[in-house]
Amino acid sequence: MPAFLRRYLPILDWGSQYDRQTFESDALAAVIVTIMLIPQSLAYALLAGLPAEMGLYASILPLVAYAVFGTSRALAVGPVAVVSLMTAAAVGNLGLSDPGAIALAAVTLAFLSGLFLTAMGLFRLGFVANFLSHPVIAGFITASGILIAASQLKHILGIPASGHNLLETLESLLAHLGQTNLWTLAIGVAATGFLFWVRKGLKPLLRARGVSARMADIAAKAGPVAAVVVTTLFVWILGLDQRGVAIVGEIPGGLPPLTAPSFDLGMWSTLIGSAILISIIGFVESVSVAQTLAAKRRQRIDPDQELIGLGTSNIAAAISGGYPVTGGFSRSVVNFDAGAETPAAGAFTALGILLAALVLTPLLFFLPKATLAATIIVAVLSLVDFSILKRAWTFSRADFFAVSATILLTLGMGVEAGVSAGVVLSIFLHLYKTSRPHVAEIGLVPGTQHFRNICRHRVMTDPAVVTLRVDESLYFANARFLEDYIYDRVVKDTRLKHVVLNFPAVNEVDLSALESLESILLRLKDLGIKLHLSEVKGPVMDRLKRSHFLDEMNGRVFLSQYDAWMALSGGEEPAQAAE
Amino acid sequence: MPAFLRRYLPILDWGSQYDRQTFESDALAAVIVTIMLIPQSLAYALLAGLPAEMGLYASILPLVAYAVFGTSRALAVGPVAVVSLMTAAAVGNLGLSDPGAIALAAVTLAFLSGLFLTAMGLFRLGFVANFLSHPVIAGFITASGILIAASQLKHILGIPASGHNLLETLESLLAHLGQTNLWTLAIGVAATGFLFWVRKGLKPLLRARGVSARMADIAAKAGPVAAVVVTTLFVWILGLDQRGVAIVGEIPGGLPPLTAPSFDLGMWSTLIGSAILISIIGFVESVSVAQTLAAKRRQRIDPDQELIGLGTSNIAAAISGGYPVTGGFSRSVVNFDAGAETPAAGAFTALGILLAALVLTPLLFFLPKATLAATIIVAVLSLVDFSILKRAWTFSRADFFAVSATILLTLGMGVEAGVSAGVVLSIFLHLYKTSRPHVAEIGLVPGTQHFRNICRHRVMTDPAVVTLRVDESLYFANARFLEDYIYDRVVKDTRLKHVVLNFPAVNEVDLSALESLESILLRLKDLGIKLHLSEVKGPVMDRLKRSHFLDEMNGRVFLSQYDAWMALSGGEEPAQAAE
Repeated sequence: MPAFLRRYLPILDWGSQYDRQTFESDALAAVIVTIMLIPQSLAYALLAGLPAEMGLYASILPLVAYAVFGTSRALAVGPVAVVSLMTAAAVGNLGLSDPGAIALAAVTLAFLSGLFLTAMGLFRLGFVANFLSHPVIAGFITASGILIAASQLKHILGIPASGHNLLETLESLLAHLGQTNLWTLAIGVAATGFLFWVRKGLKPLLRARGVSARMADIAAKAGPVAAVVVTTLFVWILGLDQRGVAIVGEIPGGLPPLTAPSFDLGMWSTLIGSAILISIIGFVESVSVAQTLAAKRRQRIDPDQELIGLGTSNIAAAISGGYPVTGGFSRSVVNFDAGAETPAAGAFTALGILLAALVLTPLLFFLPKATLAATIIVAVLSLVDFSILKRAWTFSRADFFAVSATILLTLGMGVEAGVSAGVVLSIFLHLYKTSRPHVAEIGLVPGTQHFRNICRHRVMTDPAVVTLRVDESLYFANARFLEDYIYDRVVKDTRLKHVVLNFPAVNEVDLSALESLESILLRLKDLGIKLHLSEVKGPVMDRLKRSHFLDEMNGRVFLSQYDAWMALSGGEEPAQAAE
Repeated sequence: MPAFLRRYLPILDWGSQYDRQTFESDALAAVIVTIMLIPQSLAYALLAGLPAEMGLYASILPLVAYAVFGTSRALAVGPVAVVSLMTAAAVGNLGLSDPGAIALAAVTLAFLSGLFLTAMGLFRLGFVANFLSHPVIAGFITASGILIAASQLKHILGIPASGHNLLETLESLLAHLGQTNLWTLAIGVAATGFLFWVRKGLKPLLRARGVSARMADIAAKAGPVAAVVVTTLFVWILGLDQRGVAIVGEIPGGLPPLTAPSFDLGMWSTLIGSAILISIIGFVESVSVAQTLAAKRRQRIDPDQELIGLGTSNIAAAISGGYPVTGGFSRSVVNFDAGAETPAAGAFTALGILLAALVLTPLLFFLPKATLAATIIVAVLSLVDFSILKRAWTFSRADFFAVSATILLTLGMGVEAGVSAGVVLSIFLHLYKTSRPHVAEIGLVPGTQHFRNICRHRVMTDPAVVTLRVDESLYFANARFLEDYIYDRVVKDTRLKHVVLNFPAVNEVDLSALESLESILLRLKDLGIKLHLSEVKGPVMDRLKRSHFLDEMNGRVFLSQYDAWMALSGGEEPAQAAE
């Protein structure tokens, strides 16, 4: 079999060893994930502002595509909360009101996101996801959780409300508070309370009654299904839809439809930015879950192939009436814990959801939206975790600044502004930090060959020699800083004869930095001072040899700082380092 | 005198020691710079697509403002070629045709640029200019020089032509080539040839005839004035304006007018991006000239105060009918060489230009535009220097890629796209390089305490111990890389008991990297492998102590790699490093 087929189709790898025992494990996991995924699919479609069936469709073909192209053995793909919120924001940017046009926009968004992810994977650009720093992601997820929970309160209260950010949403809720539908509120509060109790209290209770840990776990995962069944029956029997309780209504049953994305360039240009953000956020979340789970079984995932897996899943969503999907965190953990051994578990889950789409949809007519909102609220509040703020504050002010700005901007200006600002800010703060590198003037610790910061230790120095240890790679953002630093240090010191730059921590010198070194050299020459280097790393030395800098230098290159000290401060002269 | 006054008004510093001798030096320099600046001011206004008098106005009040607020003793401020081209592009974005509206837009651009520069100075944000790498600037200047020269060919040929990029300009020139005015062409070619000869051939000739070097230099600088005088007379006497030679025409004489920028928010939002680019490009160019000249006399300039100097100059331009200004390279060198000792030389130059505006403008009526175009072409072709491409190619592929992209995009899509792409690309390439740090597996050089790369040297290793030297600071962009690298290395190696991370080149660990270290630790714990650190720098150690990482570690922190080797590979156990 050609190697590239094996590389791009991981299914050929695990599929050839598929046996009955693996099938049984995968099938059991699929049953449990299906039970969990049915209410989630409906709920997240509601969150994305789309008809409920699109949630189901997004949970069928995309899972099959991931089973073929994905590398994680346990990742469960489908609609997830944060991506659904981002979809709502992206489609909202188009200002559409016709449901058909909205659905087409969501399908197109999935298509663009799928193309982008697949292209990134083919060009092996998975590293781009690293430009999102961990604290920025954590802050973004926390803020998104709050935004999502707030956006669902309207369904719990049974009132209309809208808003692109937290303040608008809360204002809109307050303005309509008088219209609260008490039946809806009762269902919403009861469902929310029940789901919180299932999450926290059910498992200990079952365990205390002698139920096995595994069964107790499965029972807890079935909580949302129980809430759906009970509240649906309740609404149907009491006829509460006549009393103003919003229900899901008719969900078209049957196979997912064959759909095509829009090829309108105007729509593409409006959606492409959102598609990129959704892709990257989705990929980062998905790949970190997949890596964590793979590590537990000494397996590996290939981030670039994961891009292709998620990309084809999104393209599959686009051709089967779905919307953007990615790997879900809690769902994948459930899949893993339930014993899923190969991506086939995902394909079996797809079968389960397909069955639900064929058979169950008529039964969901009276399902109250408040129950779905309760499912969402309980799920996303587990994403909210402000401990990242404390952690960042203790560890580094720059990280704290990035994470708080991300949280505030996400809450205040919406998901897209929040995550964009987080990325830009992380990069800017990194450049800022490295643009003012730590430079220490060092001297010899008496009786040793070690050199230390003259401000922190009692060391030997020579008024004619200044040795500066540069604790950062030299590149364009700090090149001028070093020029200024050295010039400030030497300009008034007329006794100076030698400047030694100690480079053990300089991992790179780019062309800007080389030009700065050249201009430092020129200025020192003008002042009659010699410039020397010491402890230059191999790769940096190789780089410098490609320029004329070493030829133009009026000083020398020393292998060790001690050699430099002995040669320049009047000690014994060591042999000059071979250049 | 309050310290903040002295800091923000450098004039108080040098002004208090001003004497007759300094005055004489400054005044002589001012005369020479004035002679050079008159034709340049007119020509650059033409390049910016503005009436000639705006060039003169931009050379009066802004120079006075810089004399008060600037810190460089030799910088000559005024209209310059690249900023004039960027002004033309920015104003062109507005799609105006009324000359009054165009002038107002230029004034507003100067105002916005002035506000931005002054604010950057007050907030001490001068370091932002460092994010432009040297090769990107060099590429941008070279490409701008070509664009400018191409844009002036229409004046030499006497035909209409326009274009936002090189291709459009050349196409437009070709399309109109048949309309070439031969009288204009004769003047243009003669002026260009004369000016090239003055630049290359006049000085040696005069020196050979026994003229002093200084006088020969001054004569060469007066070349453009001679061209202006001769061609103006020529056109006037032969009445060539009746034969289709385009002339400057009536320039309103007198004092610069009092003007106010537009406060239309729509215009502001269109111009603000251009204003920021103009400010940063102008500042970077200006500050590097100023620093070079200051260094020659062991003087210092303060980049943040320079921002205020240039900012107030631009605000001065905005209130006196000018357009964006900055420090000019060749002009400042002339000023320096002519002996300017204080910024007062700039103020005297302003007086000279004011006199020209009052007295000379009627004489410039018949000045052919072709002569001004010749002045511009000869001036900017000295900016064109492709050697940066060769230099970058030899030194570093990443720099070469950034500089060639900047050149191609500037030529192909215009100045604003070019410089923006250059900045983004430099930052991206830096992040890309540091996102895949060099990690070396190291072993003990027999008979020493030194450790070297096992792939490059014959060293001692132990199958139970892997030591990895990480040659880069750890931050969000490479955190995941290290996770993958370590996991790939250890996952199949069942003999492994210890992983040592050797950190002498790690200058920083941010929160993302800390989380990666924690997840590396967790995975290694799962595999029954101990994680150790060695040679951790003080600041990194301080940072790690603020987290729980060191408490959770199952290995130790060693002061030196040799201690780690002795302890882990079965050698003698050294004392554990104090944490």
